[in-house]
Amino acid sequence: MTEHLVIIGADAAGMSAASQARRRRGPEELRITAFERGSVTSYSACGIPYWVGGEVAEAAELIARTPEQHRARGIDLRLRTEVTALDPDGRRVRSRDLDTGAEQWTAYDHLVIATGAEPVRPALPGFDAPGVHTAHTLPDGQALLDTLGTLGTLGTLGTHDTLGTHDTLDGEPAERPRRAVVVGGGYIGIEMAEAMLRRGHRVTLVHRTPEPMPGLDPEMGALVRRGMAELGIEVIPGAEATEVLLGPDGRPRAVRSTAGEHPADLVVLGLGVRPRTALARAADLPLGVHGGLRTDERMRVLDGAGAPLPGLWAGGDCVEVRHLVSGRHQHVALGTHANKHGLVIGTNLGGGEAAFPGVVGTAITKICDLEIARTGLNEREATAAGLRWTATVVESTAQAGYYPGAAWMTVKLLAEQGSGRLLGLQIVGGAGAAKRIDIAAMALGSRLTVQELIFQDLAYAPPFSPVWDPVLVAARKAAARL
Amino acid sequence: MTEHLVIIGADAAGMSAASQARRRRGPEELRITAFERGSVTSYSACGIPYWVGGEVAEAAELIARTPEQHRARGIDLRLRTEVTALDPDGRRVRSRDLDTGAEQWTAYDHLVIATGAEPVRPALPGFDAPGVHTAHTLPDGQALLDTLGTLGTLGTLGTHDTLGTHDTLDGEPAERPRRAVVVGGGYIGIEMAEAMLRRGHRVTLVHRTPEPMPGLDPEMGALVRRGMAELGIEVIPGAEATEVLLGPDGRPRAVRSTAGEHPADLVVLGLGVRPRTALARAADLPLGVHGGLRTDERMRVLDGAGAPLPGLWAGGDCVEVRHLVSGRHQHVALGTHANKHGLVIGTNLGGGEAAFPGVVGTAITKICDLEIARTGLNEREATAAGLRWTATVVESTAQAGYYPGAAWMTVKLLAEQGSGRLLGLQIVGGAGAAKRIDIAAMALGSRLTVQELIFQDLAYAPPFSPVWDPVLVAARKAAARL
Repeated sequence: MTEHLVIIGADAAGMSAASQARRRRGPEELRITAFERGSVTSYSACGIPYWVGGEVAEAAELIARTPEQHRARGIDLRLRTEVTALDPDGRRVRSRDLDTGAEQWTAYDHLVIATGAEPVRPALPGFDAPGVHTAHTLPDGQALLDTLGTLGTLGTLGTHDTLGTHDTLDGEPAERPRRAVVVGGGYIGIEMAEAMLRRGHRVTLVHRTPEPMPGLDPEMGALVRRGMAELGIEVIPGAEATEVLLGPDGRPRAVRSTAGEHPADLVVLGLGVRPRTALARAADLPLGVHGGLRTDERMRVLDGAGAPLPGLWAGGDCVEVRHLVSGRHQHVALGTHANKHGLVIGTNLGGGEAAFPGVVGTAITKICDLEIARTGLNEREATAAGLRWTATVVESTAQAGYYPGAAWMTVKLLAEQGSGRLLGLQIVGGAGAAKRIDIAAMALGSRLTVQELIFQDLAYAPPFSPVWDPVLVAARKAAARL
Repeated sequence: MTEHLVIIGADAAGMSAASQARRRRGPEELRITAFERGSVTSYSACGIPYWVGGEVAEAAELIARTPEQHRARGIDLRLRTEVTALDPDGRRVRSRDLDTGAEQWTAYDHLVIATGAEPVRPALPGFDAPGVHTAHTLPDGQALLDTLGTLGTLGTLGTHDTLGTHDTLDGEPAERPRRAVVVGGGYIGIEMAEAMLRRGHRVTLVHRTPEPMPGLDPEMGALVRRGMAELGIEVIPGAEATEVLLGPDGRPRAVRSTAGEHPADLVVLGLGVRPRTALARAADLPLGVHGGLRTDERMRVLDGAGAPLPGLWAGGDCVEVRHLVSGRHQHVALGTHANKHGLVIGTNLGGGEAAFPGVVGTAITKICDLEIARTGLNEREATAAGLRWTATVVESTAQAGYYPGAAWMTVKLLAEQGSGRLLGLQIVGGAGAAKRIDIAAMALGSRLTVQELIFQDLAYAPPFSPVWDPVLVAARKAAARL
């Protein structure tokens, strides 16, 4: 008998699940229907800052798989169709065609909830005005580009340029420099700050925490703040944005914060995202403390007692995941996890066996040439997890010190007192510094101690690393202290 | 009572041991004497190609710690003093002052043999002529620079230039282009080929194996050959160099190989190194099949029965190390291992406990923008180790495919049939490709399966990686096949 798989949300998690299930089970065995509110599928939200910044020319480049490609694989894809209700007991979903308004119930055997996340937009005066942007979806990005076009600042500093300290000013158009205020100092905030620099704006970054990048410990965040200041960004730390002040045209003229007024032609909100789980909540599915769905390792939705609900799966930005170091659940909205969730769901739906073990909290970004990465727990998180830790900070270079252009890098390592188990690592540095966070991510995945980490056989040659990789130097110093 | 620690060879392994022992035990507890044939200490042999190529201006930059710095820490350093005999039973070494010829016996409580390795120089006609160079020591590098000076080709293509396909010819001096023949297609061969390109030479690479980089499987080596050809290097594969033909001035005019005659103004030998263990052999210390000393994990020299010899330690390029994947012993001459050996010896000598677990065979290099790395076992090695393996090759990009300048990369993964255990990984690609070999090195260190590797929480952002890291893509494909 043909089973019916219904998917809500045709992006990374949902369509990875669909593709994997289809690969394992043909249309005669498994019918697949995917509902998508928007008009595109499988796009890279993480790529939007580079499109807005002009480094990626077309939105189409951010689309990994088009509706036509999905349909060609036998997936019944309903675009511009919003799921308005779930009925888990009746195993059906209600959907509405956004163009015709027509509604209908669709029965399923298996349902994948992959509704993603939504950017935080505070209910404060002016925050919903035109010219106040988020950067979460392709339409968001297009709206921002439209505003840039209106402001006459769509020139860029050149697709392949690397912004140096002084290029910011040189790259501006001859007319009055445009001002962008970015609200929020996390990943999306600093990536959008770079995009606005590339578009020739003067950039002000307003953020609530004492230092940007609150996922880092403050002294590491201070390195980011210094790097941003060197790029010509005006950083306003410890400030809560309270209002977007509008001009006569109804568009931003300034952002008001607890630190003052910051002139703005354009405002970008980088205040993070939250799981988009209103639908699940309305269906009385239990949510975790971060508002995300809770699943087991096979990505089956759990009921309040922790037992999997029949036929219900969830993955991507709408779920909470287990942090393997703290043991706690977190909301981590990253395409890389969403893809893995989809693979796990599709494998299990297709008759295989797969489990998503959890995350260790790895994240990476850059602003111009300044690279930033973290994994595991920072001081605050380690303390909250009830761990006794010791911190070690080392300064080194990303390549051999004598190699031309060797980039500085600072590494901070947290290890558990007593056991010496690695708890977390943070990196801020120049080109080539940040991606070695993967060394620590792998060590966390295997629960290595710093003593074990020291003797890992990492790649060494002068253009790639000092003879002691900076991560290993941090491990050595930590081990010596423990 | 003061103990006496004697060290033979004042480079990475020896002086790391000395430094670590000194940090743990003061001069009143431990007297330290280090004998060094040459005039410098603690230099980066791996940096020599970049000095010869003009990217590093001065040999002094390659010296991590000078004789004066070592002496300031209470180490009695005897430069230009060669140890000519070991007497393990009498716990003494005989040394000769190379300037005065004076010889003497020195008694020790602990001896560290850190005599390093020596480049292979075949006993063939012309191979010992002036103008035929190795690049193992700083005097080797200086001799090569002197030859370049004689040839009038000391100009460079600019310290920070990245050589593109056509720059090679542009960078040449107006006079007749000089020709360098590099013999040997391994790490040092291709690094010296880059150095000679940077010095404006036309470069011919003669090597014995069907493809360069014999540590890679042939189809991965073919990518290296293609990349070198694009850089303008004439690659002569499958050819054994048999003679250096000399001109009337006694300097090279050509290299003769089994493939013909290759005009040369200068010859660089990159035929690998072998452990420098004549001294140990003369003292009847047992050597492994690769000619290196055998030690336990604490780096104590083993006797023929596998028991540690009292007071005898060894580390660095003169020892064999255990390969953690094959279980066999290998000779791997790398500064990163030498430093770790020194740390282990010095820790144990200083009253601590440290063990060197072995290697997984990680290596990395580049030629201009072409990056190359490997870890674990290749097909030949896996077969020799009696393992049943399956190979997976994937092509991807080092950054998100849409990110500007995204570099191609090819990944080859070997996994054990049945268990799915990762056995090895090889990478050839553009900028940003090779250092992620560390992901696989870490996985090998923890004996992960490809199924486990898939779900590691690696760093993702478009400037750093596709949403599925290419290493994980290879793991996925391998897992699907297993």
